[in-house]
Amino acid sequence: MSKFLSPEAQRLDPYTPGEQPQDQQYIKLNTNESPFPPSPKVLEAISKAEVGKLYLYSDPTCAALNAAIAGRYNLKSENVITGNGSDEILAFAFRAFCGEGVGAAYPDITYGFYTAQSALFGLNAKIVPLREDFSINVEDYMDFPGTIVIANPNAPTGMTVPAADIQRLLEKDPNRVVIVDEAYIDFGGESCVPLIGRYENLLVVQTMSKSRSLAGGRLGFAMGSAGLIADLNRVKYSFNPYNVNRLTLLAGAAAVEDEDYFQSCCRTVRETRVWTVEALENLGFTVLPSSANFVFAKSDRLSGETIYRTLKERGILVRWFDKDRIRDYLRITIGSKTQMEALINALDLLLKEEK
Amino acid sequence: MSKFLSPEAQRLDPYTPGEQPQDQQYIKLNTNESPFPPSPKVLEAISKAEVGKLYLYSDPTCAALNAAIAGRYNLKSENVITGNGSDEILAFAFRAFCGEGVGAAYPDITYGFYTAQSALFGLNAKIVPLREDFSINVEDYMDFPGTIVIANPNAPTGMTVPAADIQRLLEKDPNRVVIVDEAYIDFGGESCVPLIGRYENLLVVQTMSKSRSLAGGRLGFAMGSAGLIADLNRVKYSFNPYNVNRLTLLAGAAAVEDEDYFQSCCRTVRETRVWTVEALENLGFTVLPSSANFVFAKSDRLSGETIYRTLKERGILVRWFDKDRIRDYLRITIGSKTQMEALINALDLLLKEEK
Repeated sequence: MSKFLSPEAQRLDPYTPGEQPQDQQYIKLNTNESPFPPSPKVLEAISKAEVGKLYLYSDPTCAALNAAIAGRYNLKSENVITGNGSDEILAFAFRAFCGEGVGAAYPDITYGFYTAQSALFGLNAKIVPLREDFSINVEDYMDFPGTIVIANPNAPTGMTVPAADIQRLLEKDPNRVVIVDEAYIDFGGESCVPLIGRYENLLVVQTMSKSRSLAGGRLGFAMGSAGLIADLNRVKYSFNPYNVNRLTLLAGAAAVEDEDYFQSCCRTVRETRVWTVEALENLGFTVLPSSANFVFAKSDRLSGETIYRTLKERGILVRWFDKDRIRDYLRITIGSKTQMEALINALDLLLKEEK
Repeated sequence: MSKFLSPEAQRLDPYTPGEQPQDQQYIKLNTNESPFPPSPKVLEAISKAEVGKLYLYSDPTCAALNAAIAGRYNLKSENVITGNGSDEILAFAFRAFCGEGVGAAYPDITYGFYTAQSALFGLNAKIVPLREDFSINVEDYMDFPGTIVIANPNAPTGMTVPAADIQRLLEKDPNRVVIVDEAYIDFGGESCVPLIGRYENLLVVQTMSKSRSLAGGRLGFAMGSAGLIADLNRVKYSFNPYNVNRLTLLAGAAAVEDEDYFQSCCRTVRETRVWTVEALENLGFTVLPSSANFVFAKSDRLSGETIYRTLKERGILVRWFDKDRIRDYLRITIGSKTQMEALINALDLLLKEEK
């Protein structure tokens, strides 16, 4: 921290992303990437001819991509905004809908970025503990007078909130915004997208990083009433008008248009998740009920830290959070069947060594 | 603006980018893009194999690209940060180095984004008028107690400030940061990069959008003391840790490594600029002395608005700012020789029609 840092930036609480070793020597089950390459249509869309056009700016309105997303979700383009990953979209939303007198409420155990962004905008954050069983109970938010942020399925638990519960939050106070972060919704749970036409205070955030195999392309999007989307654009044009690059615009549209590939990837992840949960339980793990492309699990014998460190030494990365309430757990991405077999074998060995 | 918009977001002053028609029916001389495609090495770098890896996150530290940039500018990696366009880098810098009690000073006529970002962070901005001849006189900033932002060459004038003048600003008050936005430096003017080792309060911002033909890839970078760069990373990790996508990381490194192509493109733009200035002057235009890949010019007979609108009807886009002091001027990108000939012919015809 230099002497030049502003007081506001001193108060920041930067996010620590999962390890991203660049040598690809690990079985990477730590950042919830898809185990599948992007759709073949993405590979076609990023042609040499398109790469050759990189000297021209991208379309700041992201019109073609927004239209493709709108088409997929039965919305209009005015209901969609795309960003450089859903992290950027979330930042726009925190700036647009929170500030002086309007704080944000979210769970104590959830995506760590909400805290980083609350600090970025100097917000009053109400941290609401998850219930004992790690569930989100919307009653705890019912009377909160600011913006509510719910990850559904939640991370790192993978657990869901029924859409009907979100609906009650929306109806209880039509003057507050409810942001539903559906980064993992394509792997399970009930999406709130069908509610968008009915509630002007609902913002649904999704990402192409997981179910559409575009983590490295950086593409997130939000869907909501035209008013909320216009507000987000107001922030975007104050921050970074050309926020999505040309090739990612093409990749995103191609990915959205390949519904069969998308469905097939999501189905396979769900099947592998069922297999993984059973295998973990057979090894004595407690596994929270996951609707995501990861599971959150703890061993009945070894600490989360021990397992995390030993697996890493043996070439398998999972995510461990050194944080109260969840220190014993590991967040394990659902990779390919082969990767999960390697994980289970490694855990089996590790547990046998402890005997 | 919806009823949900925060007071902070109501006070925003969003930037209006130049028109970006997507049908490519225009001769586009309005957003200072390069007339040349990216280096052939960029086309090689974005291979199908790399596109196929988009399911993996990009490296949040941008290590390979930062090393390439550091190598090119005789710096260390700790002196470099890359962003999703230089707009993002500028936003990080405004947050890192400005805030309560530390405002920003910049010219009345300069890149419009500084105003948008001052509003984004609720800063006190001191707007310093350019001198009568549109030059920046650093004396006007000498006693300013906050962060100074100087575009060099300035936009939209194209005029430069000597590096020795920037040096005096740096020395006058070592406790304030001076941001030099060198978006156009590769086309003329004296870069402040060689001063980085000597002044820990100097931040130089550059972009690959212009001289490296990667506007559509979105890639900007800043170079400065390790302390300033660490501060910028603190903001980045609070806002968007994976801010640069995989393909742009590759494109940027490939572009930086093709020095010959870069030099050749810059040289051609400078030659075409000389030709264009002479042709404009022959048509009765006053042209400010430009060191950028654009010129700022006014006709002795027709208003800026008339020329802008008529050219647009005839398929040529230039940039016109409806703003005091510069309403009579047009900012004209230096495109290919063929494009500039088409522009000059169109202007010639237009002026003859007025006789």
